[in-house]
Amino acid sequence: MSRPAHRRPAYHKINKDLFVLTYGALVAQLCKDYEKDEDVNQYLDKMGYGIGTRLVEDFLARSCVGRCHSYSEITDIIAQVAFKMYLGITPSVTCNNSSRNEFSLILDKNPLVEFVEELPAGRSSLCYCNLLCGIIRGALEMVHLAADVTFLQDRLRGDSVTEIGITFLKKREEKKYRRKK
Amino acid sequence: MSRPAHRRPAYHKINKDLFVLTYGALVAQLCKDYEKDEDVNQYLDKMGYGIGTRLVEDFLARSCVGRCHSYSEITDIIAQVAFKMYLGITPSVTCNNSSRNEFSLILDKNPLVEFVEELPAGRSSLCYCNLLCGIIRGALEMVHLAADVTFLQDRLRGDSVTEIGITFLKKREEKKYRRKK
Repeated sequence: MSRPAHRRPAYHKINKDLFVLTYGALVAQLCKDYEKDEDVNQYLDKMGYGIGTRLVEDFLARSCVGRCHSYSEITDIIAQVAFKMYLGITPSVTCNNSSRNEFSLILDKNPLVEFVEELPAGRSSLCYCNLLCGIIRGALEMVHLAADVTFLQDRLRGDSVTEIGITFLKKREEKKYRRKK
Repeated sequence: MSRPAHRRPAYHKINKDLFVLTYGALVAQLCKDYEKDEDVNQYLDKMGYGIGTRLVEDFLARSCVGRCHSYSEITDIIAQVAFKMYLGITPSVTCNNSSRNEFSLILDKNPLVEFVEELPAGRSSLCYCNLLCGIIRGALEMVHLAADVTFLQDRLRGDSVTEIGITFLKKREEKKYRRKK
């Protein structure tokens, strides 16, 4: 990512309500634009992907995370460093299979839905926060890690928890994770 | 504004890059949706208005600002407290007329455009940050202050500074500013 010369590298924080409400406006706009929930979900994912590819360089620079040696470590970094930095929350992580390439992030709190009482009428399949999946997918792609990232459960859709599933698509044996090629 | 019971009243901060990039995605989407810059500007203003009407209660609660006795004081609060809280910047304020109801906020820095090198091709009349005008307008409306809020200058459009103009529409003599009716 090229970075304008005037950008300060400092770690800037802002009040999140402005972000949360602006995100709501974005989702509302997409719901106006696309009739099908699946299309809105896909579009949010695509937008998020673009954002993730741009965020990741700053994230690596600011977080000073070192080389990761396992998918488990990478998922922990996403939960404990990235989510903390960008959303102020720390999801818990579970590993879902013996191959150790499928993980879940369990979000006890989800700041993005703080102003959302319920899904809009007729939008029961909407993944309201699907931007997050796209962001994770885009950021991982930029460090040469292909992954499927989807909401497995969502409190907004009546599930008991909000859960983002991350499935890394290549076995660790096939390709070592490298921060820089 | 009704507030879900689970919301914590604490003052939460997040890294602003996620917001800035998400805002960019919103503007890009509106540029896809609306051919004319004027329509995009108007829509951003309208969206901002809705956000402002929701943000203001939290702002008043968190900022603990007291009753203001002049438009000048109100504008200073917007610049020094609200901009600082939500965008991490403090615009300077100038008063533009002897009636003291027209003010300018001069933004030396504008975090919302940090990832924007230039306006999209063919979008020379786009007020990229017009959401901010709507937010200010909506927030003021909620404390019974009618105002016109527009970008008078914008570095993204080649001006030397970025300047938001606020014109309060009623004379102080006609209506006292009341935080609660």
